[in-house]
Amino acid sequence: MADLITAWDKLGAHIRETALTGSIQSTLYWDQNTRMPRSGSAWRGEQLTLLAGQLHARQSSPAYAELVAEARQIWAAGERCLEQGRNLDLLEQDLRRQQSLDPALVSALATAKADGYSRWQQARQDSDFSLFAPALQTLIDLRQEQARQLAEPRSCWETLAQPFEPDLTLDRLMQLFAPLKERLPQLVAEVAAPPRSRSASWELSEVAQQSLCDQLLMSWGRDPDSTCLARSPHPFSITLGPSDYRITTRVVPGQPLSCFLATAHEWGHSLYEQGLPNQSHQWFSWPVGQATSMAVHESQSLFWENRVARSFAFSEQWWERFVEAGAPLRAPRDLWRAMNPLSPGLNRVEADELSYGLHILIRTELEIALLEGGLAVSDLPNEWNRRYGELLGVTPENDAEGCLQDVHWSEGLFGYFPSYLLGHLISAQISEAMIEAIGSPEDHVARGDMAPLLAWLREHVHPLGRSVNAEQLVEQVTGRPLDAGSFLTYLEGKLAALSTA
Amino acid sequence: MADLITAWDKLGAHIRETALTGSIQSTLYWDQNTRMPRSGSAWRGEQLTLLAGQLHARQSSPAYAELVAEARQIWAAGERCLEQGRNLDLLEQDLRRQQSLDPALVSALATAKADGYSRWQQARQDSDFSLFAPALQTLIDLRQEQARQLAEPRSCWETLAQPFEPDLTLDRLMQLFAPLKERLPQLVAEVAAPPRSRSASWELSEVAQQSLCDQLLMSWGRDPDSTCLARSPHPFSITLGPSDYRITTRVVPGQPLSCFLATAHEWGHSLYEQGLPNQSHQWFSWPVGQATSMAVHESQSLFWENRVARSFAFSEQWWERFVEAGAPLRAPRDLWRAMNPLSPGLNRVEADELSYGLHILIRTELEIALLEGGLAVSDLPNEWNRRYGELLGVTPENDAEGCLQDVHWSEGLFGYFPSYLLGHLISAQISEAMIEAIGSPEDHVARGDMAPLLAWLREHVHPLGRSVNAEQLVEQVTGRPLDAGSFLTYLEGKLAALSTA
Repeated sequence: MADLITAWDKLGAHIRETALTGSIQSTLYWDQNTRMPRSGSAWRGEQLTLLAGQLHARQSSPAYAELVAEARQIWAAGERCLEQGRNLDLLEQDLRRQQSLDPALVSALATAKADGYSRWQQARQDSDFSLFAPALQTLIDLRQEQARQLAEPRSCWETLAQPFEPDLTLDRLMQLFAPLKERLPQLVAEVAAPPRSRSASWELSEVAQQSLCDQLLMSWGRDPDSTCLARSPHPFSITLGPSDYRITTRVVPGQPLSCFLATAHEWGHSLYEQGLPNQSHQWFSWPVGQATSMAVHESQSLFWENRVARSFAFSEQWWERFVEAGAPLRAPRDLWRAMNPLSPGLNRVEADELSYGLHILIRTELEIALLEGGLAVSDLPNEWNRRYGELLGVTPENDAEGCLQDVHWSEGLFGYFPSYLLGHLISAQISEAMIEAIGSPEDHVARGDMAPLLAWLREHVHPLGRSVNAEQLVEQVTGRPLDAGSFLTYLEGKLAALSTA
Repeated sequence: MADLITAWDKLGAHIRETALTGSIQSTLYWDQNTRMPRSGSAWRGEQLTLLAGQLHARQSSPAYAELVAEARQIWAAGERCLEQGRNLDLLEQDLRRQQSLDPALVSALATAKADGYSRWQQARQDSDFSLFAPALQTLIDLRQEQARQLAEPRSCWETLAQPFEPDLTLDRLMQLFAPLKERLPQLVAEVAAPPRSRSASWELSEVAQQSLCDQLLMSWGRDPDSTCLARSPHPFSITLGPSDYRITTRVVPGQPLSCFLATAHEWGHSLYEQGLPNQSHQWFSWPVGQATSMAVHESQSLFWENRVARSFAFSEQWWERFVEAGAPLRAPRDLWRAMNPLSPGLNRVEADELSYGLHILIRTELEIALLEGGLAVSDLPNEWNRRYGELLGVTPENDAEGCLQDVHWSEGLFGYFPSYLLGHLISAQISEAMIEAIGSPEDHVARGDMAPLLAWLREHVHPLGRSVNAEQLVEQVTGRPLDAGSFLTYLEGKLAALSTA
């Protein structure tokens, strides 16, 4: 027993220091996106490269491998606690991956990510893809090399998608997306037939938007002692320590609800992080205490954005606050329509629920083509614009509105986008289970009491951490495998409601 | 020659990585003071402890010592370039100090600093010194132990002051301060005789104060691409990379000029940093490219705050902008009087130029007493209040207004305060030299052109870096040893001007 404690303690101390280093990296990333002046980027890149190298060394060193092996031996000889076994499975998987990677590649990737991000910012500002193209090519080359070095029995794109969606295969993804690829364009066409409800024709001041966001988070129980809200070009949520949760939002001119909905969305991400079994320092370091997939993460943010903030009941509760803030609304319905524009546009983050999936299908197919299908980087803008015209009936006027709009590829994140759409599917299916258990979110929203919704998620979803993967989580929570059915049913219901509203 | 390049390159690579790690530490510190939610402090403390340990290991390792020794050998055998020699002197001095310290002490200090800072924040908020006292005792114990381990031929306080004022002795400090200790109370009494000009009886909105600060920095040539302005409880300036300069300010209710003057002050610090020979990554890592002392740093911030922003000419240029921002001023003189209140108060940062020195004399004597004179921590609030009553004629009503007002001791920074007053002396003496060379700052301010002032500092002061210590710098720039004469002459002139205004 003394041996067991010692081996686990040593391993725990090691991965705790790894978690500290990782959270330092995250803090630099947070600062880079919220406060760092532009010309700080070269030095920041060097800092991140240094940390990436240190992290890789820690996570692939023979001494660490020995700690993992010792813990596994003791585990096998003992009571074989399931949770500890799962922790070891995940540590071993990550160790194998880290050991497969050449430190030179790790360092080159860190540099290329920082460089790519900085060039993307410039390119987006100037709306000139050619400024970003060489950096993107470098990132693609390095990621392809990474997949080769990892040498998993998976395709290049599949290999790169693993950190976001563990165990996902391309076949399974296509199976899940097939009904959407068929049905979503039909639904978009149905809505497009009658005169579309356009996005709001009014505007809210920055101060008013900020105040509404503050009110929203206060009413949802935000604790200012452990959370922080800031601005960044691209909204995100990040956890910098076991009691240090941050989210960002942004004000988009001409989109008076964008900041508000982004706040609801990022807060949903943060609530998931806050509900993970990572409240103690101990758990913050072990894999089982972490988020299980980006799709599950997204399902949590979408719940608060779409099921709560975009519900009619929410507009009934909140429309007068929007009127006070300066919105020319005559009834709850006006706010509700503005919250649910159903008008295909160019921007993913600002997209309505219906066309959102098409944004993802385009990105998914393009990044697979870039990594595996021989699509040339220089052809990306044209290919992007062509697909937008075909699938959504809109064509970007420039690269900033088009293929430069998202941050992900600038940091070499390929395989990430599908998680957003999978998140819609998971959110819909989990919501059905929630409705069966405690009634519809709308009813709770109408009573102005979000506590039961959060409590249910805190009981059934958040505490699972990485003890299960995304699909296992869905099956455990909803009693059946994941599919697109719930999501399409939900969308059709919403469309019907909006068309009679 | 090949050997020489190799040894210097290896040493350069090592200290560059040290600089990267140090700047990561600074980034965490910046975030801690500007954005981190309160309950993030425990984890932040662990991150900082980890980095402090890594830094100490890097800076005291036998491998590093060997690099320094090799470089010294090659230097001695070669042309003995003065600048490289100075770099080696400083690296060797720091190496000796780092090698003297027990890693356990370094780690304990990092933890105690983070803990002290967090407890100080709470204590100040609750205005209850007893919440902070145990942490302060721990910091004193650890700093005393540090001085013992360093075992320099200096007293405890003197040893701890070295990082801020290299080569300063307690005797020399007393010699420099003696005329101030005698003359400042007399001057305060003279001003106190007629009805005092009190601080402004009007207020400016936060938005107006922010806008004035933005205008100030724009007119002083701030480049938003390499600088960042934020808020923190205690204003500070920090450099996070060779092209990443940050300053903070704060809005103090009832003190409409506090935010503005703090901005001028911190910007002066930043200008010094921006003018150091550290523009290339190369120099950012070498000692000679760094600031030479906190007093010299302070002389630069004071120049822009007191000689420029508090000048009559500045009020003439700016009073209408303050009127637009909502200040009820009828003439430049109203702004100038408000900028120069000459009313002894409790707060150091808000103090007028005349009584400022007394704030420092009190702190200096108290910290020497705490470290060397047997003053008990529990007696600090009484001792503080007693001296304020005696020297300044004001008595704090609570600990927040009294001995909890400054951040320094909460982070174990003892020996730092005198630099502020030495900075006044240096600023005054350097200003005399500037006046002789290019005429009075007031004249340049009256013409609305700050460029010649900055250009003179950029030529004569900033680029010296650590090639000289503070007193050598003063002698080199002004042609005579530092003394309190210029400062007292300046103060008396200002008093005379204000009493006839």
